[in-house]
Amino acid sequence: MRMFDIIDKKKHGLALTKEEIAYFVKGVTSGEIPDYQTTALLMAICFKGMTDEETAELTLEMAHSGDEMDLSHLSGIKVDKHSTGGIGDKTTLILGPLMAACGLPVVKMSGRGLGLTGGTIDKLESIPGLSCALSMDDFFKQVEELGVAVASQTQALAPCDKKLYALRDTTATVDCIPLIASSIMSKKLASGSDAIVLDVKYGSGAFMKTREDAQKLAEIMVAIGTHCGRRMDYVISDMEQPLGQAVGNSIEVNEAVMTLKGQGPKDLRDVVYQLGAKMLLVGDIVATEEEAYPLMQEHLQDGSALAKFREMIQRQGGDPSFMDTEELLPLGEFSEEIRSDIDGVVAKVQADVIGHTALDLGAGRATKDESIDPGSGVFVYKKVGDPVKKGEILAKIYSGSKEKLFAAEKECREAFLIN
Amino acid sequence: MRMFDIIDKKKHGLALTKEEIAYFVKGVTSGEIPDYQTTALLMAICFKGMTDEETAELTLEMAHSGDEMDLSHLSGIKVDKHSTGGIGDKTTLILGPLMAACGLPVVKMSGRGLGLTGGTIDKLESIPGLSCALSMDDFFKQVEELGVAVASQTQALAPCDKKLYALRDTTATVDCIPLIASSIMSKKLASGSDAIVLDVKYGSGAFMKTREDAQKLAEIMVAIGTHCGRRMDYVISDMEQPLGQAVGNSIEVNEAVMTLKGQGPKDLRDVVYQLGAKMLLVGDIVATEEEAYPLMQEHLQDGSALAKFREMIQRQGGDPSFMDTEELLPLGEFSEEIRSDIDGVVAKVQADVIGHTALDLGAGRATKDESIDPGSGVFVYKKVGDPVKKGEILAKIYSGSKEKLFAAEKECREAFLIN
Repeated sequence: MRMFDIIDKKKHGLALTKEEIAYFVKGVTSGEIPDYQTTALLMAICFKGMTDEETAELTLEMAHSGDEMDLSHLSGIKVDKHSTGGIGDKTTLILGPLMAACGLPVVKMSGRGLGLTGGTIDKLESIPGLSCALSMDDFFKQVEELGVAVASQTQALAPCDKKLYALRDTTATVDCIPLIASSIMSKKLASGSDAIVLDVKYGSGAFMKTREDAQKLAEIMVAIGTHCGRRMDYVISDMEQPLGQAVGNSIEVNEAVMTLKGQGPKDLRDVVYQLGAKMLLVGDIVATEEEAYPLMQEHLQDGSALAKFREMIQRQGGDPSFMDTEELLPLGEFSEEIRSDIDGVVAKVQADVIGHTALDLGAGRATKDESIDPGSGVFVYKKVGDPVKKGEILAKIYSGSKEKLFAAEKECREAFLIN
Repeated sequence: MRMFDIIDKKKHGLALTKEEIAYFVKGVTSGEIPDYQTTALLMAICFKGMTDEETAELTLEMAHSGDEMDLSHLSGIKVDKHSTGGIGDKTTLILGPLMAACGLPVVKMSGRGLGLTGGTIDKLESIPGLSCALSMDDFFKQVEELGVAVASQTQALAPCDKKLYALRDTTATVDCIPLIASSIMSKKLASGSDAIVLDVKYGSGAFMKTREDAQKLAEIMVAIGTHCGRRMDYVISDMEQPLGQAVGNSIEVNEAVMTLKGQGPKDLRDVVYQLGAKMLLVGDIVATEEEAYPLMQEHLQDGSALAKFREMIQRQGGDPSFMDTEELLPLGEFSEEIRSDIDGVVAKVQADVIGHTALDLGAGRATKDESIDPGSGVFVYKKVGDPVKKGEILAKIYSGSKEKLFAAEKECREAFLIN
């Protein structure tokens, strides 16, 4: 078998065989296939696509390319949740403790962010002392005893995907549904959970720009997971504007705490409930989604979800005392209010622009070796549909650096379209 | 400027600017742009094409990427001829001496073959003693004194094209008209001739499979050359079956000698006349193509073209005494006749299959470090339209290796379709 022929075949729009895909994944993982052939194939895939069978084979081979976690010794149905990524998405911080309080074990491997804002791990690690670098033993023990643990993803999971992702990221071949689907699902399959609930986002702050593309991506991922014996479900959610009001790291932890206290913004609560209902359903905790809502409300109201989060923070070395203060985690030393210069109604809060603002404030990483300023970020006061008067506050930005704050001001204002 | 943005732009079908193309060529030449980004762009170009302006800019930048020859100190209009490559194409061996005899100086830089059969240099160097590794001084001196010299291409000519070609060759991105056009024309422009006559071939033994594609490629190359102040003309020629009867190295030299002696197969003579007429026209030796035919006939009949070839061989260190023997250059020690097993008429002699047969016999290189067996090759007795009887000879194959001869027999037979 020759990589040349595989590239040529795909270039002419033909489907690759199981054997050809296996050869490709093995060659990429071992380094035998040079990067310049890999990127030529990736570009050809962007133009010619992959059939559902090819996508499934690619996913499976990538899942098999490294370590695969065995969670069978843990009791219960292990449910994973995956979001395709968005601005202000702190649902994992809320769903982890909430699901555990409802009796569903959550075994969550998560990533650091590369891009506009931090990942779940970065957000959690903005809590003083907390670490997500858990040993497998501690990780499993915590799930057994507490019902929830969030650990950083091991490098040994789906190494082929890591190599492909790094190449896609520099060759403009990221936005391709079969490649996105196989990248996500290979890591999910290797993570070993029994069920997966997907949060597929669309809009200016998401990979998928339209609801139709998000639907297509969701269906392919569900088909792959089902084919591999996983229980699958999904939610399609809007990412035209940021989710909730907080965008950053500490600031998002604070909003998660408020939501676990039964407060927090409605759009965030809605997505949490939708995802939680599906997780409880595929996890056999409830028989219908309708049953899930009162159960979740109960555990938010009686403080048990919040208590789970507190315990999780403590078990992972963090100090949860901030949860009892009014201001919660401290934010950046410097801050600035962004105000409207006209009367009107908010027509858009562009998620991608708010994301860039957060990155510029210090909340994200432009390259993988950069560090994050946990207290930096954006708090959005006005969202789509809100009336606003001239001089009223639209958002507040925070940073540890005066220069960054100054540089981000204009961008933040431009995120808002007011008619 | 970032290579990522250039790839993304082309992926979305947009035309690159002059500055972007210059950035790309400089980065490839210096090695600053990694190969994996280059091949992603090449694949995107295969799908989205290039405008004529982009193709012209790419060609010019590649021509400027290394040494550029200055032929202005040589007298007369220097005419180059370029063939896009085919099976049994020995026209340069004939046209070089013939044009010189007609008074047109031929300054020919040529390549070794990588692929099915040897290149012009390989063919010439099958003559005992002959070398094409001429110093620039000797090369120019020979042109001034004799009117013709054929030297191997210097590595310093269009180095960007060399890098791109090596990458295209392994990533299935060769068959793309703007990339082919810029590759050929960058070397031609850097070679410094005043006029270029192109022989653009189509058919099973050529890059271009249809006459329409060959026409398109020819027109783009003519436009580029004209834009750069070169006199341009072209011939579109058929490469469905091999050109002439001989395919190999020594065997093609022999056919060239026969043609210079006024014999040789009609299809070969026709292409030689067509190209020669255009070369004499753009070189201002004749005022119309019609005038060129009697002039060429005269120099073939009076032996002056053959005498030029003899002198050229001597000047380049070769022994021309084989020209006076009946068998000319010796062929492979082992040979086999391929005979028809039915009565009928030859419908096809597949050029690509004959080319593969020649490669298998030892006439070509599969990788650039392989050596060539000069005496190996194929002699085609029956061509399209010829009637054939069961048991009659279709072709004769030659090799220095009994094993190779045996392995190539079946393939050679399969090249012939008889109805």
